[in-house]
Amino acid sequence: MADPTPQAPSLPDSENTEGQSEDLIHDLESGIEEAVVQALDDNNLERAHELLRLIHYTDIADLLERVDEQDRGLIIELIRGDFHPEILAELDDTVRDQVIDVLGLDDLAAAVVELDSDDAVEVLEELEEHEQQQVLEAIPESDRALIAEGLAYAEDSAGRLMQRELVTAPAFWTVGDTIDYMRSNADSDDNTLPDQIYSIYLVDPKHHPVGKVMLGDMLRSRRSVPLLEITEPEMRVIPVETDQEDVALLFSKRNLVSAPVVDTDGRLIGAITIDDIVDVIHEEHEEDIMRMGGVREDDLYDAAIDTTKARFSWLFVNLLTAITASVVIGMFDATIDQVVALAILMPIVASMGGNAGTQTLTVAVRALAMKELTATNTMRLVGKEFIVGSINGVLFAVLAGLVAWFWFESQALGLVIGLAMIVNMMVAGFAGTVIPVALDRAGVDPAIASSVLLTTITDVVGFFVFLGLAALILL
Amino acid sequence: MADPTPQAPSLPDSENTEGQSEDLIHDLESGIEEAVVQALDDNNLERAHELLRLIHYTDIADLLERVDEQDRGLIIELIRGDFHPEILAELDDTVRDQVIDVLGLDDLAAAVVELDSDDAVEVLEELEEHEQQQVLEAIPESDRALIAEGLAYAEDSAGRLMQRELVTAPAFWTVGDTIDYMRSNADSDDNTLPDQIYSIYLVDPKHHPVGKVMLGDMLRSRRSVPLLEITEPEMRVIPVETDQEDVALLFSKRNLVSAPVVDTDGRLIGAITIDDIVDVIHEEHEEDIMRMGGVREDDLYDAAIDTTKARFSWLFVNLLTAITASVVIGMFDATIDQVVALAILMPIVASMGGNAGTQTLTVAVRALAMKELTATNTMRLVGKEFIVGSINGVLFAVLAGLVAWFWFESQALGLVIGLAMIVNMMVAGFAGTVIPVALDRAGVDPAIASSVLLTTITDVVGFFVFLGLAALILL
Repeated sequence: MADPTPQAPSLPDSENTEGQSEDLIHDLESGIEEAVVQALDDNNLERAHELLRLIHYTDIADLLERVDEQDRGLIIELIRGDFHPEILAELDDTVRDQVIDVLGLDDLAAAVVELDSDDAVEVLEELEEHEQQQVLEAIPESDRALIAEGLAYAEDSAGRLMQRELVTAPAFWTVGDTIDYMRSNADSDDNTLPDQIYSIYLVDPKHHPVGKVMLGDMLRSRRSVPLLEITEPEMRVIPVETDQEDVALLFSKRNLVSAPVVDTDGRLIGAITIDDIVDVIHEEHEEDIMRMGGVREDDLYDAAIDTTKARFSWLFVNLLTAITASVVIGMFDATIDQVVALAILMPIVASMGGNAGTQTLTVAVRALAMKELTATNTMRLVGKEFIVGSINGVLFAVLAGLVAWFWFESQALGLVIGLAMIVNMMVAGFAGTVIPVALDRAGVDPAIASSVLLTTITDVVGFFVFLGLAALILL
Repeated sequence: MADPTPQAPSLPDSENTEGQSEDLIHDLESGIEEAVVQALDDNNLERAHELLRLIHYTDIADLLERVDEQDRGLIIELIRGDFHPEILAELDDTVRDQVIDVLGLDDLAAAVVELDSDDAVEVLEELEEHEQQQVLEAIPESDRALIAEGLAYAEDSAGRLMQRELVTAPAFWTVGDTIDYMRSNADSDDNTLPDQIYSIYLVDPKHHPVGKVMLGDMLRSRRSVPLLEITEPEMRVIPVETDQEDVALLFSKRNLVSAPVVDTDGRLIGAITIDDIVDVIHEEHEEDIMRMGGVREDDLYDAAIDTTKARFSWLFVNLLTAITASVVIGMFDATIDQVVALAILMPIVASMGGNAGTQTLTVAVRALAMKELTATNTMRLVGKEFIVGSINGVLFAVLAGLVAWFWFESQALGLVIGLAMIVNMMVAGFAGTVIPVALDRAGVDPAIASSVLLTTITDVVGFFVFLGLAALILL
């Protein structure tokens, strides 16, 4: 560990506290958002335009997401003249569709030309085929080829994610050669350098990547130092068809900042940088959390009717499982007819099993998503969760048994609910790990199907064991 | 958009496909992990040591997390001689505690010295006070002061997250001045440069940050260019006490790669870089997903008994809500006694309300976590979810009504379940948005408490409306 940079002596200085009082996240939240919406409501477009000039393009993107469709159209018209192309890359898919409709294909093409190739591909990939063609035809040929190639890679692959613009250097160059090359390139009209540069890739004559030099290491080395002397000790090469989720995991696990992407012949064709990865991580997390809640992604900005349709199918599956549980209860209608207390108590057993199972399931699904479950520890997790379910099963058997005993003044009823609780919570602990692991091995995303399978099992087992034991013991 | 770098002509080249066949994420999964565990089981420590030398330190960290406590101890002893300090920064808290116990405080101190200050603070913050003191005393004074200062900032604050080592330059320097400074600094014994450099901060004489220069922009500029000419158009300054969650959101929203951190007097005291942010994002997502599932974080690697204890409290709350639902059912015992079909069908209404509400809740909790819900769109979301709940309520009322009608040959029973379904799903849509928004405004994390409140409401309303309508209509 090194010393910090020297600091000026500690003089109190109350005038300069920039960045302290303002809201860190949103200029919008400091009231400009409301002011814009108010100005639009008042039909004071001049005032709205003035306010829109004050805020950062990422905040304009946020604002576009939050307002309703009508205001969205108005805002686009106001900023059309000085439209910041990066706004398109920031928008949620549903909102972007609408913004593009208002913007029109000509202005869209003008904006797309200004974007880095990865962002351009992201904007265009959601368009319909004929719209894509129309936009592509409206942009200069050199850019067009790059974007068309990007679109040719599979969705959610490294090929879609990567930036085509990158800095490469022959492996025999020195630091001085490279700096000279970058300076002359930056000065020329035909600037081929990307906006953000984190590292420089060394290539052999066949354009295979043979090393990576971080910019910081270049800046602290003398001009005569060969690049090969200051390459990173390890370089991970990403095949172009790799899924973006795997790329994101690799970046997180290996603490990478950038990585080269190669085609099937091992030639360097692009680079992925960590700022793209942050978006992927958010996306994948959103996918996981939404799927576990039974929601399609991108739900927030959808119209009510689209959301209703999308949620219907999940609720329909749940209706079927609820009916299944009811069929199980129906098998014991004669028993319930004799002891109505059973109908009162039976949801407790099912609900506790469902909740205990969901706890286990959450841990297992998350561990699978982070690739933390391997052959070595999966069986140990299954065993541990079974034990956890059993111990908590016994504890809650005692609690629920006492409640039933005193409520209905029946020791036998307390015994029945206690035994059913133990069985159901053991089953919950077991099913909560085995279901997601089995789904994962079968190639199904465990975040989608696990919870409905689990609650079906805990409901069916809960009702069946509780009512079945009651029929045996109480009657 | 710029042209890509020129590529070598496309010759097929089957020899060079490095990185294509190997597993991208884990060397471990290629079988080395199993081989190490096998060697440990066979007590063949020499073989295990040999294998451990082959794998990347991040994979050793993963392996330490996955094996059981005994193997963990064996592995630490094997790698003690060439222990990679960064392993400590990679470990889960529970596992790190154990590793530190085996490692001992002296070897820990030796490792901590090698870490960047932010990682050192992360490793030490979980130790008990007297252990912290012991480690701090064993490391050189200059490093000690830095780490102790880091530990003085609040947990999860920007101060804990930031790196103290950074490159600063007086605002009047040129590109050439800066490169010369970095080269001579790197050559000197007293190297104060951080391992990874993304940007250079310009400071005024009071050490206030006045600009940020990206390294890429420095490398493409001539030596005579003043740094002030190539500063980033915008620089966000982060107050040291900012919560890490807000810092992560700022980085994501503004696509930042690095940002300066200032003390209360506005003086530059450190920098946060995007690689630290990736860890925070994972951590915050884990927190959200775990809390929604009723689990404490860090659960995967806890011992069974600790997990059981941690989950008990959540299950206990659920027991109370389940009993509340049972009390509601108990109010209608006479009704159930007369129509046993009610006991069979009643879980359907409650379950559909719970699932519909959970869908809504998931969207709302996620939007709150991402700060996407503001004054402008919150009311619109509440309205939309109420509409979605109502429409799906009507659709599932028809389906459930038909099922009940044909199953029990009673139109009246079909009517009762249908009406109850509409009411409960409308309530679910409304409660699913209003509960998390209200909790968030009250300063409670909506991820923790929302779902238990929601299912209590949908259970109570579901049972009460269904059985209450039955008592009115059927009897």
